[in-house]
Parts: sequence; C-alpha cells; structure tokens
Amino acid sequence: MNYRMIRYIIGSLIQMEAVMFLLPAFTALLYGEQRCVAAFLGVALFCVAGGQLLKGRKPENVTIFSSEGYVSVAVCWIVMSICGAMPLYFSGYFPNPVDALFEIVSGFTTTGATILGDVEILPRSVLMWRSFSHWVGGMGVLVFMLALLPLAGASSMHLMRAESPGPSVGKLVPKVRSTAKILYAIYFFMTVAEFLLLLLSGCPLFDSVNLSFATAGTGGFGVLNSSAGEYNAAVQIILTVFMILFGVNFNVYFLIYSKNIRDALRCEEARIYMGIIGVSVLLITANTYAGIRGLGETVRHAAFQVASIITTTGFSTVDFELWPEFSRTILVILMFVGACAGSTGGGIKVSRIAIMAKTVLKELAFMIHPRKVQKTRFEGKTVEHEVLRSINVFLIAYLGIFVLSVLLISLDGFDGITNFTAVASTINNIGPGLSKVGPTQNFSIYSNASKLILTFDMLAGRLEIFPMLILCTAGFRRKRWN
Amino acid sequence: MNYRMIRYIIGSLIQMEAVMFLLPAFTALLYGEQRCVAAFLGVALFCVAGGQLLKGRKPENVTIFSSEGYVSVAVCWIVMSICGAMPLYFSGYFPNPVDALFEIVSGFTTTGATILGDVEILPRSVLMWRSFSHWVGGMGVLVFMLALLPLAGASSMHLMRAESPGPSVGKLVPKVRSTAKILYAIYFFMTVAEFLLLLLSGCPLFDSVNLSFATAGTGGFGVLNSSAGEYNAAVQIILTVFMILFGVNFNVYFLIYSKNIRDALRCEEARIYMGIIGVSVLLITANTYAGIRGLGETVRHAAFQVASIITTTGFSTVDFELWPEFSRTILVILMFVGACAGSTGGGIKVSRIAIMAKTVLKELAFMIHPRKVQKTRFEGKTVEHEVLRSINVFLIAYLGIFVLSVLLISLDGFDGITNFTAVASTINNIGPGLSKVGPTQNFSIYSNASKLILTFDMLAGRLEIFPMLILCTAGFRRKRWN
Repeated sequence: MNYRMIRYIIGSLIQMEAVMFLLPAFTALLYGEQRCVAAFLGVALFCVAGGQLLKGRKPENVTIFSSEGYVSVAVCWIVMSICGAMPLYFSGYFPNPVDALFEIVSGFTTTGATILGDVEILPRSVLMWRSFSHWVGGMGVLVFMLALLPLAGASSMHLMRAESPGPSVGKLVPKVRSTAKILYAIYFFMTVAEFLLLLLSGCPLFDSVNLSFATAGTGGFGVLNSSAGEYNAAVQIILTVFMILFGVNFNVYFLIYSKNIRDALRCEEARIYMGIIGVSVLLITANTYAGIRGLGETVRHAAFQVASIITTTGFSTVDFELWPEFSRTILVILMFVGACAGSTGGGIKVSRIAIMAKTVLKELAFMIHPRKVQKTRFEGKTVEHEVLRSINVFLIAYLGIFVLSVLLISLDGFDGITNFTAVASTINNIGPGLSKVGPTQNFSIYSNASKLILTFDMLAGRLEIFPMLILCTAGFRRKRWN
Repeated sequence: MNYRMIRYIIGSLIQMEAVMFLLPAFTALLYGEQRCVAAFLGVALFCVAGGQLLKGRKPENVTIFSSEGYVSVAVCWIVMSICGAMPLYFSGYFPNPVDALFEIVSGFTTTGATILGDVEILPRSVLMWRSFSHWVGGMGVLVFMLALLPLAGASSMHLMRAESPGPSVGKLVPKVRSTAKILYAIYFFMTVAEFLLLLLSGCPLFDSVNLSFATAGTGGFGVLNSSAGEYNAAVQIILTVFMILFGVNFNVYFLIYSKNIRDALRCEEARIYMGIIGVSVLLITANTYAGIRGLGETVRHAAFQVASIITTTGFSTVDFELWPEFSRTILVILMFVGACAGSTGGGIKVSRIAIMAKTVLKELAFMIHPRKVQKTRFEGKTVEHEVLRSINVFLIAYLGIFVLSVLLISLDGFDGITNFTAVASTINNIGPGLSKVGPTQNFSIYSNASKLILTFDMLAGRLEIFPMLILCTAGFRRKRWN
C-alpha cells in the first residue's frame, strides 16, 4: 500500500473541505449566527492545519493501484464526514456526535435522511451546510479534487472508478481530468439554471439556493419541516423537472455538449428511465385519484413523489404514507431501481436493472433454442462478460449488506416495514422510508448502534458497495499487504 | 415441439394420479364419508378415462428436448393440480374453485399455505389427500413416473432436470432411473421411520400418517388448527429432527446408502445448512428466553420454528408473530435461504446462497489482488461458469417474480408485511407468513386474482422459476416453434 500517497490525498481533501466551510461560515456571518461562525471557521482552521500535517511533502511515488483506490475513497469519505460533522456538533444543535455524523453522512451521500424532528429551528448556516454537502457529495468530491489538482496522474482513474456511480465509467475514462472538468461545469450550470427558475417562480432566495443544491445532488434535505409541501405549484413543478434531469446519465449531457444530439437521444438507459417514470406516474395517478383533488394536482403530486423517489432525492409534497398500498409498493420498488448510472442519484441504477432483465430474457431464449447463442446488448453494444459478472456480484453483495443491516437494526424492536424501508432508504441514498421513518418522521428513534449501521449503509450505497466492503476486509488483512 | 409425446406423458401422469386417489377414497370408506368416496372415486374414473384419451397410442418418437422438458413439467404440474383440486371442490368443503386449486397447489408444491380458517371441520379423507399431496409433490411426481415406466429413455434427464430442486442435478443424472428408484426408496423408508417413531411417542394413528407425509414433503398441512402446538414434547422433537433430515441434500443419504460415509459427512452444503440452523436457534433462544418458559422449552420452540421455516415445512408450535422483531426477522431471512438442493424443501437453497457468497468473497479478493486469479469452489470442486451464470439468472428472475407479485397483490390493499411475507411464503413453498397471513391466520383474505398469482408463485417456486417462465414465454411464441 502506498500509504504516503493516500495520506497526501486525504490531507489535500480536508484542506479543500476547509475552503467549503467558508460558504456556511459566510452565511452565519450574514445572519449574525455567532456561535456558528466560530464553529465553521474553527473547524476550517483545524482542517487546514491537520491537512498540512497529513500531507507532509509531496510523495515521489504517486502510483495508486486499483485496490488502493477503493480503500482511499472509502477512507476519504469517512474522514471528510467526520470533519464535516464537527461544526454540526459544535453548533450545539447536535449534542450527540453520532447524530451529527449521521446527518452529515446523509448529506454527503445525498441521502437526505435526518435525525431531526424540527429542521426549522436550525440556524441558516447549518441548513446551508447540510444542503451544500449534498451538492458536494453528488458529483463526487474526490473526482473534483483530481480535476483541479494534478495529483495522481493516470492513477486517478482508479479513484474515479471507485467513486463514480454505475456499472462502469465507460468511454470517459481515458481523458479523466478534462472530462471531469466538463461534467462539473455542466453540473454547475444546471444548478444555477434551477436556482434562477426557482427564484423567478417566487421561491425565497435562501430556499432557492438550498433547494438547488439539494436537487442537484439528488439529496433531499429541505429547509422547512414540510419538505417541499408548502411551496407553490410552479416551484414544485420546477423541482420535479430538475430532479428528473439530475437523475439522467451525465453522458447524455456530455453528448449534447459535444453537439452529438442524435446519440444523446438514443441513450437506452435514459429512455428506460423516462419510461419507468411515465408508467409509475400513470399507475399512481390512477390509484390515488379519488376526485377530492383535481386531476392536475393528482398528477403533479404523483410526478413529484415518483421523481423524488426514483432519483433518490427524497423531497415530498404529500405524506405518501397515507397513499393506498399499491402506490406505496410502487414507491418502494422505485427506491431500489434508482436513477441512471453516471448521474448524482443512488439506488441499484436503471442500467443494472435493464442489463439484469436482459440476461434473464437471454437465458430463457437459450433454454428454448439451445443452439442459438445470443449476447446481451445494451446501449447498442454487447455487454462484456466482466460487466455482467460485476453486476451480479454487486447485486449479491448489495442484498447481503441489506439483509444483514435489517437483521441488526431489528434488535431495536421496531416493526418490519420501518426497518426494511429504513435500510432501503439509506443504502439507496433516498431519505424517507415508510411507517416510523416515513416522510413526516425521522431517524432519531433508532439507537446509536443502529444509526451507525445505517451510516455505513449510506456510505456503502453512495460508493456502490465495494469500497466499504474492501475497507472492512482490509482491516482484517492489513498484514498480508505489507 | 413433440406434442404427441407431451400428451402421452400428461395422460400417463393423470392415470397415475387416479391411483393416488385410492388412498383418500379408502380413508373416506373407512370413516364412512360417503360424499367424499364418490368425489374421489368419480374423479379417479374421470382421470383414467381422460388419461387414456390423451395418451392415444404410444408415440414412436419419444425424444424430448430441453425446452420441451421445461414446458412439459410446467403443464404436467398444472394439469395434475387441476385434477387434484376436483375432489376438494366436489367434497363441498371448497365451494370456490380457485380456493380448491390454491389448496391443492399448496399441497403438491409442499407449501402448506391454506385458505381455511378451520381445518378440523374437514373430513378425514380430505385431510389425508392434502397431506398425501405433500408427500407426492415433495420428491417430484414426474421423476417417480419415469422411475416406474420406461417412458422417455434418455430424454427423461430433461424432465428430471426441470423438476428437481437445486442448481444442478449433478452426478446422479447418467443413471436416472436406477438412481431415482433408490432415492424414492430412501424417501419411503424415512417416512415410515418417522411414522413409527411418532406412533411410539403417543401421537394418534391418523395424525402420525398425516404428519409423516407432511414432514417428508416439507409441506406443512396439519390436521389440527393449532398446527403442531397441541402435540407432546416428544412428538414435537421427532418432527423437528425429521424436518431437518428431509431438508438435507438427498445425495448425502445416497452416499450413506452406497456406504460412502466419509464423503457423506464432508458434504459442504449439509454442513452449512446445519450451521445456519445452529446459529439461528442460538440467536432466537437468546432473544426469546424471558424466564417465563424454561430454557429447555425455549430451545425446543426455537428449534422447531427454525427447522420448520428453513426446511420450508411451515408447521408451528407457537405463534411466532408474537416473538420480538429480531427473531421474526431471522425467520423471514430463513424463509429465503431454504433447505439444501436435492431435498424436498424449497427456498433459494443453501448451495445457491453459499456459492453466491463465495462469488462475492472471490471478487473482493480479486479487487485487492488483481493478479491472483481464483476460482469459486464448492463441495471441493471448481464451480463451472455455467452453474454460476444459471444461479445469477435464477436470482434475478426470482427477484423479478417476487417484486411483481408483491406489487400485484398490493392492489388488495393489505399492509406491506402481509403482502411481502405472503409472496415470500408461497414462492419459497413455506406456508405461513407474518401479520395477516401469520401462523394463526390463512390466505382467504385475498381476492381470487391474488390467490391465482400466489398459486403461480407456489408453482414457480417448486419448479425453480424457469419451467413456469418458459411456459409463459411459450404462450407468446408458439408460432415460432412450429
């Protein structure tokens, strides 16, 4: 293991985090929240100093192997979360350090699950930090750092692969740095566009900033207890549209940026994703339309909730806990489907689901016509055996972590739906679940042990299982590495 | 498609079913249940005549291809179930034909889920037919027929493969007929041994016969409303032991029969299976031991319920709906694990779970040491790529059917735990679920449409997904086959 290089990366990362603290610190100054100014600036200074200590001199050997990439990313996210939790703790609003950690991991992983019953009592700077953490975590902070600093050279591919969502980074890999810069620019401009549109629709300035951050990262932290329920219809529609847009594979935007509109429109994953959204909205509208609300309003709420859940954002405009069981079941299924690979959303990802479904159809065809050998195709290309294998292993590891987490948190004694959807909601980076962790509830009911398990699930979900698993394995095997 | 041969097989099958009807008919005579005598004998006559009509002359071409094997098995099971449901309907105790079908499919698939609130009002002949259907379905009726009648020659492998549980039939295939005869003999003698032991422990004669049938098939239909709760401790312990024994891979017994004790003891699947049972009993005992019951009784109940659920039998001695959430969660997990491949039990099967877990560990090792290529090994042998692929496809198809079933039955409006465990319980061929389909409840709450979906799930679970899926696909593709 190239420990010096890993330390150097971690050091640089928390120094960059120190810069990020300036936004909430500035907010605190603006609104006169003195204790928060001290908390954010104090931790920022600590991060600058600690980062320098960790970095030391720049290591001569900057090579990072694949396994080190996974471990580095996992460690980076944990260190970044611990530093990010510190101002929350020092602000005085999160007296339990586990709660502070849960909250900021929920932020960085763009989950949006909270342990607070009342978010409106929070100072504005803390709200800003929560929303900003979504925006930072959405596109992956390490890749951002690699795009800015010429750190690891060719090795950065291993870091990017470990941090980016989806079955494979694909064609974008060779030109990591320039591509990453373009993707971040697209991300930035889409966020600004949403912010301006929200402002134009009459959404307050502070809310617009926060909502834009949270939508862009498909996070879901709001600034009101009612999540997005109190905003006017125009704001809700803009949020719906942007949640869906941020759930699309960023390859599509990259293609549009490269003026390759035809290929962009052909993206199979995006089309299936839109199809799933369409069918779900239709079914839920039919199921929840009772004539009490107008048809337009029913569709709007159905679309908002579907967009929020499938993109794993987690905002809500209604308490879907009160919906009929059929609609609730659709939402639970969407929780697992998730958004497109290469988007800021979580979940299993549409491309994985589509490839898995195609594998089954291929196998059935093979059983019927054993002499006809077919290949699974996706996005117009044959799916490599390596990709299929990694998807299968992903599914199994995902289910394993899922089952184990549900079992462990069941020790707290809550009902099965609460435990099941609590894990579903955290491992898929959504936010709300059902029953005792439904959209009007929060995660404070769980014990500290369960909160830590759910925190692990959020990180495992955001980093797509393997970095966290390898880190756990690494703990047991460190000797064999040296 | 060799339609003539398939018709011939179906004809022979229902004629054999006519012979099976003689057991309940005899029971009806013995206990003076006249209407039932008429029902069973009448349907038996109908089956003999209908079977002859279907068979016609013996076809010259007896070749059956793999795909035809799957379709034949699926059609055979459906026809057999429809015929088996007829005497239940004519007995007058199942006025709804869908209920009669659900009940007998639950019998043949060894599920043991019932739509009756009160089984004690049933005549003894009907109770006998329900239990007997478990015994018949447990080892697979088609393989039994192939063992007796020299029907399809070498093609019988395709039928056996489609009907037998587990990832692959393994070494036993080449000598299908002689092996099948030995396995059925082992099955028969184990059932007799259980019957005698039950009788010796003071269990009434009629109950002993029925319980033996139901345990051997890992079915779960009882003759009392309290399932196995009213029997004495000795009877409960015997049931526990035999449930566990019938959940072991029959290869083990075959090896013992061949005096190859060392290999029998080495069977990896059986050892993992015993390990899972041991750990589960330990955890549940620790979780449910409250000092009200003695430790011995707590262990006995824990062991009984664990054995009942992991082997997918479905008997119960206590209402585990009242257990703490942690123990209930363990039971739900065991529902999915299931028994060993090549046993009469259902579920995903221990060998599949073990191989899947090993795949993940191998992948993690590969990520850490990319240059070290390792193969997944099970039972001391390298797992073939074909087997891995079929397990992955199985898992995906299984999850797909699972999710779709939960969604469809959610239209009836019951809570999520009821729907989730209803599907878990039927697709894994267990019997009881939780909440509204818990051990003291039944499946009558569901609509006819949902009952048919759950019936499909039972068949899909028993035949391990693919025959039923191929049958569905075949309906759409019939033209392409001719």
